[in-house]
Amino acid sequence: MSKAILDGIRVADFSRVFAVPACAQILADLGAQVIKIEEPERGDEARYYGCNAEELAACGGASPSFHALNRNKQSVGINLALAEGREAARRLISTCDVLLHNFRVGTMEKFGLGYDDLKTDNPGLVYGEFSAYGPVGSLSHIGANDLALQAHSGLLHLTGEADRAPVRVGTAAIDLHAGVALSSAILAALFHRERTGRGQYVETSLLRSSAHLMNYFYSEYWMTGKQRSRMGTANHLSVPNQVFPAEDGYAVIIAPSDQMWERLARALDPDQLLRTEFASILDRQAHRELLVETLSAVTRTWKVDDLVHVLGEAKVNVAKVNSIAEAADHLQLSAIGGVMQQPDAEGGRKAVGSPFTMSRAGEIPFRSAPELGANTRSVFAEAGIAGAEFERLEKAGAFGLAAAQID
Amino acid sequence: MSKAILDGIRVADFSRVFAVPACAQILADLGAQVIKIEEPERGDEARYYGCNAEELAACGGASPSFHALNRNKQSVGINLALAEGREAARRLISTCDVLLHNFRVGTMEKFGLGYDDLKTDNPGLVYGEFSAYGPVGSLSHIGANDLALQAHSGLLHLTGEADRAPVRVGTAAIDLHAGVALSSAILAALFHRERTGRGQYVETSLLRSSAHLMNYFYSEYWMTGKQRSRMGTANHLSVPNQVFPAEDGYAVIIAPSDQMWERLARALDPDQLLRTEFASILDRQAHRELLVETLSAVTRTWKVDDLVHVLGEAKVNVAKVNSIAEAADHLQLSAIGGVMQQPDAEGGRKAVGSPFTMSRAGEIPFRSAPELGANTRSVFAEAGIAGAEFERLEKAGAFGLAAAQID
Repeated sequence: MSKAILDGIRVADFSRVFAVPACAQILADLGAQVIKIEEPERGDEARYYGCNAEELAACGGASPSFHALNRNKQSVGINLALAEGREAARRLISTCDVLLHNFRVGTMEKFGLGYDDLKTDNPGLVYGEFSAYGPVGSLSHIGANDLALQAHSGLLHLTGEADRAPVRVGTAAIDLHAGVALSSAILAALFHRERTGRGQYVETSLLRSSAHLMNYFYSEYWMTGKQRSRMGTANHLSVPNQVFPAEDGYAVIIAPSDQMWERLARALDPDQLLRTEFASILDRQAHRELLVETLSAVTRTWKVDDLVHVLGEAKVNVAKVNSIAEAADHLQLSAIGGVMQQPDAEGGRKAVGSPFTMSRAGEIPFRSAPELGANTRSVFAEAGIAGAEFERLEKAGAFGLAAAQID
Repeated sequence: MSKAILDGIRVADFSRVFAVPACAQILADLGAQVIKIEEPERGDEARYYGCNAEELAACGGASPSFHALNRNKQSVGINLALAEGREAARRLISTCDVLLHNFRVGTMEKFGLGYDDLKTDNPGLVYGEFSAYGPVGSLSHIGANDLALQAHSGLLHLTGEADRAPVRVGTAAIDLHAGVALSSAILAALFHRERTGRGQYVETSLLRSSAHLMNYFYSEYWMTGKQRSRMGTANHLSVPNQVFPAEDGYAVIIAPSDQMWERLARALDPDQLLRTEFASILDRQAHRELLVETLSAVTRTWKVDDLVHVLGEAKVNVAKVNSIAEAADHLQLSAIGGVMQQPDAEGGRKAVGSPFTMSRAGEIPFRSAPELGANTRSVFAEAGIAGAEFERLEKAGAFGLAAAQID
């Protein structure tokens, strides 16, 4: 059997909530041993996100979003407020290849766990740091989340209807984009270490991620002075290129070329749509409002599935606005290996896989997100801390009060 | 001087438009030699995106979005419709470590440039393939773009106001997320090759990227049956957690804990806001509409900068909804190295950097996006095709009619 891509790579993961856990999960799916270090009494706050007690119990004690981003990891509890906790953390890190954290700027240094504190003893360490606005600058000490960076970056300014307040991008795109970007940086550093033996410090932030998502709007502004603003579902590049209403839902229709527009018009309603005002791309731009109104009146008389079928056959770009259930359960996603499913014996859970396939990745396991502190004793034993030494640290509270009972 | 992270890595990049060019640019920023292979007469269609002739001329012949995603690359023109073009491509690929493409499913195989066609002669090749809905399944032959996958994935369903049609996420988040995910896969494959000497096939798609961006909503649905829907700027987790209007703009305000809410209320208007109906997190959820209305009436009397300043001081999560100019030019982004700037002598262009920093990356160059076919002759000379051999292919049209003049 071939080895996993990151076979033998150990990751000390001090991160919480979304972005960095998403990064660590990608490394875990590639076969790294990801050791999630949590505050021993409550753990990662994402364990409780958006759930009442009943829902938590139904999901095995942790929220769906925690499950979505923490499979294939181990959990150890460490109380970093205690000297013994920091000693345990330091010893654990010394056995690891990668460290990840998203504490506020300066916190790891306060714990004696900054990159400068560790690199001499472990020159091969790849140290990944994550923050909201980056490690320096006037905003570096301001707390922020995905929505705050949607606002700061101009993404909100572009999202919503022109004459109304901006609306939220429906998912935490900046968080997750940042997580994947950090995984690229870690993998690039591991490649470099494989060639040179040397580790390094890598870093990203919600701000860097948001700017990358907005890069072509910033370039346009820097190069031409032009600033875009929100225009509902539409797009300045072409018409139609937006959401249209159907009798029973919505569909996106995009027909940028004259030929595609003509195919659309013939397929749906030539009497209404095959008009000289709409014939060329410039005509359609000039009569944007009339076209959207006319086409909407037509699409409203169709069922959304028929619209998608007929336009698809006519080779017009079209997609249904799916609900969450329709999207998650669509057979195409599982057909391409995008859904991981445990056997019933292991819980039968489903989850979205890492966002790529590699032919040499082998079978990617799916172990559910760990219970808080579930691996404290075994992970420290592997790191050479066992017996009387483990007990000394444990008695001092390094692993929290409950460590002995859980493991 | 230390070498770049991907020093010596050569990438044959057959990709166009957004996602894969974003991936290739990350590799280029890390020091890989990225050879962009373009259709010789028009090239990557993104060269002309959203620009009229005047704007194109002002931007040096290529659109801002092309500039945003194609720096630090070389361009060669190859006509893959001709046998001589395919011969040239194959010889070029044989000198490369990585191949990237986003042709429609089956096209590279038709050219004789599928992974199975190449892996025997070049077992170390990392072959990266990208598509809309993935390489197999009922949708694999359907064309789609970022907006289509926003619709298909349920992201649009979550974006917009509850009682109105969904709106577009203002940036091509699925495209760019896919690009970064593909860069992770390529870097993981290069790490594996460094260890084992073996290349591999890696693959992703807009569909995989969109599902990753939606993963926690799908997990929630799979685990609890719950399906979210759009709620404007708000969020089901807490109140306030959304956009609020100011006298002269908008700000995002997020105060999930009772303590933070109280600090907010005292800072802005204790008479209006310090009410028992709003005291606890459950109270605020129960009186969501009243709270949003009351707080909006208060924030409307503030200038947005004052709101951000006062709430920031009170340690309440707050961010201004910036315009594109405000976001792009905000000093924080350049303070953390997020903006690349050429010296005036080289054009003085600005661009958003790759979404991470690495301490051993060295100085990252910024060579503007290449002119179409600018490097055809020199790249083929490096690949051992020069002199009479180059001329034979050139005369047959392998590099397009204009290759000789451009280089």
